[in-house]
This record gives sequence, C-alpha cells and structure tokens, in this order.
Amino acid sequence: MSKLIPPHGGKGLINRMLEGAELEAEQKKAEGLKKVAMSPREQGDLIMIGTGGFSPLEGFMTKADWEKVCNDFLLSDGTFWPVPVTLSASKDEADAIKEGDEIALYAPENNLIMGTMKVTEKFEMTEENKRFECEKVFMGEGTSTTEEFWKLAEDEHPGVQMVMQQKPFNLAGPIKLLSEGEFPTKYKGIYMRPSEARKIFEERGWQKIAALQLRNPMHRSHEYLAKIAVEICDGCFIHSLVGNLKPGDIPAEVRVKCIDVLVQNYFVPDKVVQGGYPLDMRYAGPREGLLHATFRQNYGVTHMIIGRDHAGVGDFYGMFEAQTIFHKIPYPEEEGKALLCKPLNIDWTFYCKKCDGMASLRTCPHSKEDRVLLSGTMLRKMLSEGGQLPDHFGREEVLDILRLYYQGLTDKIEVKLHGAATGE
Amino acid sequence: MSKLIPPHGGKGLINRMLEGAELEAEQKKAEGLKKVAMSPREQGDLIMIGTGGFSPLEGFMTKADWEKVCNDFLLSDGTFWPVPVTLSASKDEADAIKEGDEIALYAPENNLIMGTMKVTEKFEMTEENKRFECEKVFMGEGTSTTEEFWKLAEDEHPGVQMVMQQKPFNLAGPIKLLSEGEFPTKYKGIYMRPSEARKIFEERGWQKIAALQLRNPMHRSHEYLAKIAVEICDGCFIHSLVGNLKPGDIPAEVRVKCIDVLVQNYFVPDKVVQGGYPLDMRYAGPREGLLHATFRQNYGVTHMIIGRDHAGVGDFYGMFEAQTIFHKIPYPEEEGKALLCKPLNIDWTFYCKKCDGMASLRTCPHSKEDRVLLSGTMLRKMLSEGGQLPDHFGREEVLDILRLYYQGLTDKIEVKLHGAATGE
Repeated sequence: MSKLIPPHGGKGLINRMLEGAELEAEQKKAEGLKKVAMSPREQGDLIMIGTGGFSPLEGFMTKADWEKVCNDFLLSDGTFWPVPVTLSASKDEADAIKEGDEIALYAPENNLIMGTMKVTEKFEMTEENKRFECEKVFMGEGTSTTEEFWKLAEDEHPGVQMVMQQKPFNLAGPIKLLSEGEFPTKYKGIYMRPSEARKIFEERGWQKIAALQLRNPMHRSHEYLAKIAVEICDGCFIHSLVGNLKPGDIPAEVRVKCIDVLVQNYFVPDKVVQGGYPLDMRYAGPREGLLHATFRQNYGVTHMIIGRDHAGVGDFYGMFEAQTIFHKIPYPEEEGKALLCKPLNIDWTFYCKKCDGMASLRTCPHSKEDRVLLSGTMLRKMLSEGGQLPDHFGREEVLDILRLYYQGLTDKIEVKLHGAATGE
Repeated sequence: MSKLIPPHGGKGLINRMLEGAELEAEQKKAEGLKKVAMSPREQGDLIMIGTGGFSPLEGFMTKADWEKVCNDFLLSDGTFWPVPVTLSASKDEADAIKEGDEIALYAPENNLIMGTMKVTEKFEMTEENKRFECEKVFMGEGTSTTEEFWKLAEDEHPGVQMVMQQKPFNLAGPIKLLSEGEFPTKYKGIYMRPSEARKIFEERGWQKIAALQLRNPMHRSHEYLAKIAVEICDGCFIHSLVGNLKPGDIPAEVRVKCIDVLVQNYFVPDKVVQGGYPLDMRYAGPREGLLHATFRQNYGVTHMIIGRDHAGVGDFYGMFEAQTIFHKIPYPEEEGKALLCKPLNIDWTFYCKKCDGMASLRTCPHSKEDRVLLSGTMLRKMLSEGGQLPDHFGREEVLDILRLYYQGLTDKIEVKLHGAATGE
C-alpha cells in the first residue's frame, strides 16, 4: 500500500457530499429554503469544497478568512490558503437572509439546486473591498503601479472583471453538496473526485506524483512537461480544467478530446492518469499556481508542474512569477498548516531543430531560428484557414481535432473518451 | 551564498594534501622511507582520499572497516560506505614493514612518490578473503548461484580479476597526499578536486545539483539524462572518470574530447559544469553506483543520475539493480553517517521516431522498430569501418572524433579542451 501525501490542512479529506437517504431529505428540505444563485465560478468552488478538493475548507469564506487570505495567504486559523473562495449574493438575496439561516444554492442556468449552506456571516463587498481583493490577488510583476494595473485590468483581465461584477454581498458558512451538476456525466471517465484520484494512485502504488495543469489542448510543450515528470516521478496526473475559460477559448469538451488522443498515442498508459476538475479559470497567475498546488495535494499530488506564465493572462504577470512565489509564501510550522505539494518548475519549452527534439531555455543553447515557436493567435489562424503548420509543433492527431473545431465541424470529431489511460 | 550539501561522514571535507614547505619536507622524508608500489586503482583511491573525494576516509581501510563494509555497507564507526578502499602489499613489502612505520607510496609506472602513510595495521588477504570480498561486492542479480558467479567472473569480470590479482597483504592507515600524478596536467580544465567543484557551484549559486557519471563518449542517451537533470535541478555536473577502464575501451583523453564537443554544442554553458575524477572503474554495478553517489556528495552533488546497468559489466547485474539498492542500504540515524546524495533514477533511454525525440521506456509507448538502438559492438564496427550510422543516434561532432579514433587517427582530433562550460 502506498503512502500518499496527506490532504492540505491536517483535517483529512473533507467530504461534504450527501448520498442516499440523507441526500433525498436534504433535497426535499432545500426546496423550501431561501435561494441564492451561484455564478459558474461559485458552482465549481462549491463542488471542490464538497468533494474535498478544497480541504480543509468546509464552506465559503468569512470576512476574516477572506481578508487574511488576501493579505497573508493564510486562513484566520493560520492555515495556508492562496485565493479567496467566496459566495456572493445580491442586495435582495442578502436582505432576505439573516445569519443562522439555512439557504439553498442553485445554478441559474438550469435551476439546479447544487448545495445548501448554513449562513454564519453576511458581509458587504463594497467597490473598495472588491478593488482590494483584485489588487492583492491579481496584481503581478507585469504592471509596475496600481494605476497601470487598473488601466489594463478593467478591460483585459477576466479575473478582475469577474470579481468586480460579483454581487455586492458575501455569504459565509459551511456547505453541503447535493449535486456535481453535469460534470460527472459530461466528462465521464475524466471528471474525478479527489478520493477517486487517490484510490487510483494507491492501487498503482504511486507516491511521488506530478500534476500537469491543462486549460488548453495538449501540444508538444505540454507533452514535454508531462514527460519530464514521468521520467522522474512514479507517474503524472494530467489534470484538465473542465470548468469555464474566458470567451473565445477552446471549450472543455474539445480540449478533453485533444488531450485524450495525445495521451493514448504518446504516453505509456500505466505512467499517466487523466482527470478533470470542475473549476473556472481565475487567471490569478502566481496565486492560482499556488491554488493549483494546494488542491492537487488533496488529489494526492506531491509535485505541481509550473511552467511559463502559469495561469496567466495578457502581460499581467512575470513569466516565472508563479514559480518564484513558492519561495515567498508563509510555511506555517504547525502540523498540516503549510502547503506540502512542491512546485516542479520547468522553463519555456519548444521543439528545437538543432537539438533534434524538445528542449527548454535551460537545455537548448541554439538560436530563435532553430526553434519552432508559434503564438496562440497564429496557431488559430493556421488551423482555421487550413494553412500548413510548422513541423514538430503539435501531434497530427491533436491538430486534426482542432482543424475540425475551428472549421465549425465539432460534431465530426470522433475520438471516443474511452479513458484508456485513466486506470479504468 | 548557496548552501551546498555537506560532505559525507560529518567531518567536513577531508584534506590530506600537502603544499609548500610542508610538501617539500615530506617529499624529502619520503625518499628515505620504505616503499610500496601502488596499482593504478590504488593511486586513484589515494588521490581521492587526499583531496577529500572519499571523505570521511583519511586513509586506507583496516581489516575491521574492510569486513564491515563488505558485510554491512558501514565503516566500523557506523558510517555508511559501499566498497572497500584498501592498499595491497607483496609479501616482501609487508615483511619489511611493521605497524607504526611510515612508508612511501609510489606509482611503479614512473617511480613517482604520490603519498606517505602511517601504517596502523597489516593484515593478510588470503585467497579466501579475496573471494569473500568479490562475492560481497561484485555478485549481483545477473547470476543466481555463487558457482555460476565464479564460473563467469574469473574470465569476464575485470573488477573480480583486479581483486584476485591484488598483492597478498593489506596495509591500513592515514595517508598524506604528495602528488596527484599527471591528472592535473593531462586533464587540465577537466580534472577537479571536490573543493574546486564546490567553489564553482557556490559561485553559481547552485544547490540542487545532479551528477552524470560518464565512462563512455557522450551519446544522445547520456545527453538526455543530463538534460532531464538540467530541466529540474540548478545544474548538472558532467563528471567523467579519467582513470582506467578495462582493456579495449576508449581511452579517457578521447572520451573527454567527445564530451567536451558535445557539451559545447548542445548545452547551455551556465547550466553544466564539466569535471573529471581520477578513479579506475571497479565494475561493481550497484555498489559502485553507491560509491558514485557517496563521493559525488563530497563534490557538492545532491542527486546522482543512475541509469540502466550503471557501472555494470557483462550480465553480472540486474538492469536497474543500481537504482533499487538505494532502498536496501542502511541509513544510520546519527548525524552525518548516512548517505545524503539521492539517486535520480532514469529508465532505459533512446531516440524514438514516433515520439520525434529522446524518450525512455517510461515515456515511449511505441515499438522496438520505432526506436534507434545500437549496441556498443555495432557502433564500434560502424565507426571503424566507416559505415553509415542510423539517424539520431549520436551527435555528428562526437561521431567525427570517434571515427578518427577507430581509424587510428587520434592525433588528427582537433577539439581543444578550452573548457567553455567548466566555469573557467
């Protein structure tokens, strides 16, 4: 039996999911409760709390937690935590609720009640509070002054926009999870709870496990990161975000197919596990890199791969700020309170013709002209217009899927999600 | 200032090299002492002891150390040590020496006195003692019985032959090092004492340092191992054996040129340091892998790259026995007594056409036919007969040197040892 890394926070894997009769009773009760609509980001956070992905969190944050996380990377009990996990409510919703109430949390897209919460605190999020959160969470080395940050962020930072558009109150309290929405069915064989990932890792006898965070189709750069991890760890957890990205990005169902076809053709099955998690991107760069390491620890991961501009957007962050931040955060001494999952830092990677293979700025001494570099914009243009891509950029099996997607032929994509490498 | 890994044994870096007036006085005294001739293996060991490469050893081993090392991987004081480091003497030499004597140690090839030793113990190495040492040190998973081992070893194991041919007495005691022989001049810019390597690493601010052991010209498999290390560590110490190999192998001066040309053309200079160490190969497989990690720790190395059949010969060892042995050795709890340098295990590596790059059995799911695999024998044949090598096997710059060598044109080899990547 392998000994996996313990979940973050020292309280074991939190489980606030209801099942069977308990679930039925709570669903029935929830119908009669006051209701609060959740944004997609909040829905993902709710599922992560309920399934233990956000252990030791048991609910949405209080004002004290929110403020200390922003200022000090710590919950108010002194446990490391990198980003706010809050639930917002409109003035009407908030006015109808008082502390101590139980409420139902629902997804307005389909009126599905996904959870309930015992409200322990209700606090206003003024414009000033929101700006404070944004500056703490999203301001990085890419902007040199607060003015410059705001000038760019209001138009160009989807994470900042998301916070600024949040409803004006926050509700805190422990939750119960009644439904994971459509994730388990839509991403069957890919969507995976932390307990399920841990079970697979234990069965395989893995202990040193790296996670590759993916929010894009898997190109050779990502493949190279994962393969370095496979060379030096027991295995690699290829873990894709299946929540929402910013508008215009490739949707999760297409990305998952790209990843699946690449994994099936270019990886040794028993060295990788493919999984998906239900969060939306926050684009918080370094702070989100820390969040990725924190919740990966709950999935059993010991090493979080951090590459170039991890979880970044535009030019808001330094290229490797998500690597260096691991040296700047507090590591509380009390047992369980410090982040244990370590970063596995990799430099900017590419195919180099002279190296005759994949390389990074650390391993390739050659020049720009020898390297196959392609911006996302160029790639999209070439794929949608049917242009010829440079050799060695991607795997043909993946590019074929992307060509169909960009030509609006998503329904012609034929890769089956048979989960060859998921241990099923 | 970086904080390097401490030398093995908890006594700091041993320095038993004499300099200046002290050296002159000892050289003068040595002329008048009784003399013992050293084998090439013993000369290398002497230099390693004197320069601190074998810290905490201060001299050649006593019978108690020798026996405990063979049996338990420990010196008699309980410090981890993997292989015997002994000095042999003929009956005539031994008869003339009594415990307490100071003696001079010389290289018979050129009559150079390289060290002196205060003899603390003289003990016989019977045929039975030698066979005990061989069975403990050289018998691995490749042979299933002691009989089978001896049947093969007497003809085919150069390490066993070396021990069996040793002179019949061992002399133990602390040494003083008077000369490093021709290593510093013959391998200028490559030969490096542990203190010199540590100084370079400190200047570069490195802390997590991998070492690549080389006793062959550097092919793409070795390059791949080193590059994985560069991706994940502060840097890689490409550390070649510049002592003797078994007859028929490529001599150190040619190997060093191959390595140099590859490093200069395919590595980022500030991510590698090239060095040479003065030992002969023992071909002790797993035990030698441990020795490699032990003395690398003294050079400041934290991670020893262990690949397929590390330090092996013929079929005496399991392919990955030098990796698994790290889990079987004692790790004494007392400070300084356990080996701190960790193995960085890498599987069998090769170029794969479908992967379109280097890979290992852990990362490549394709078939034998897709891989470029070439035995040493085939390689020698192709290079000496001018045959065409398969694409992607080696770097042309290296193969050019080897072609000249195999065609007997060693003097035409033109690579200068300018040490571009040595930090000089």
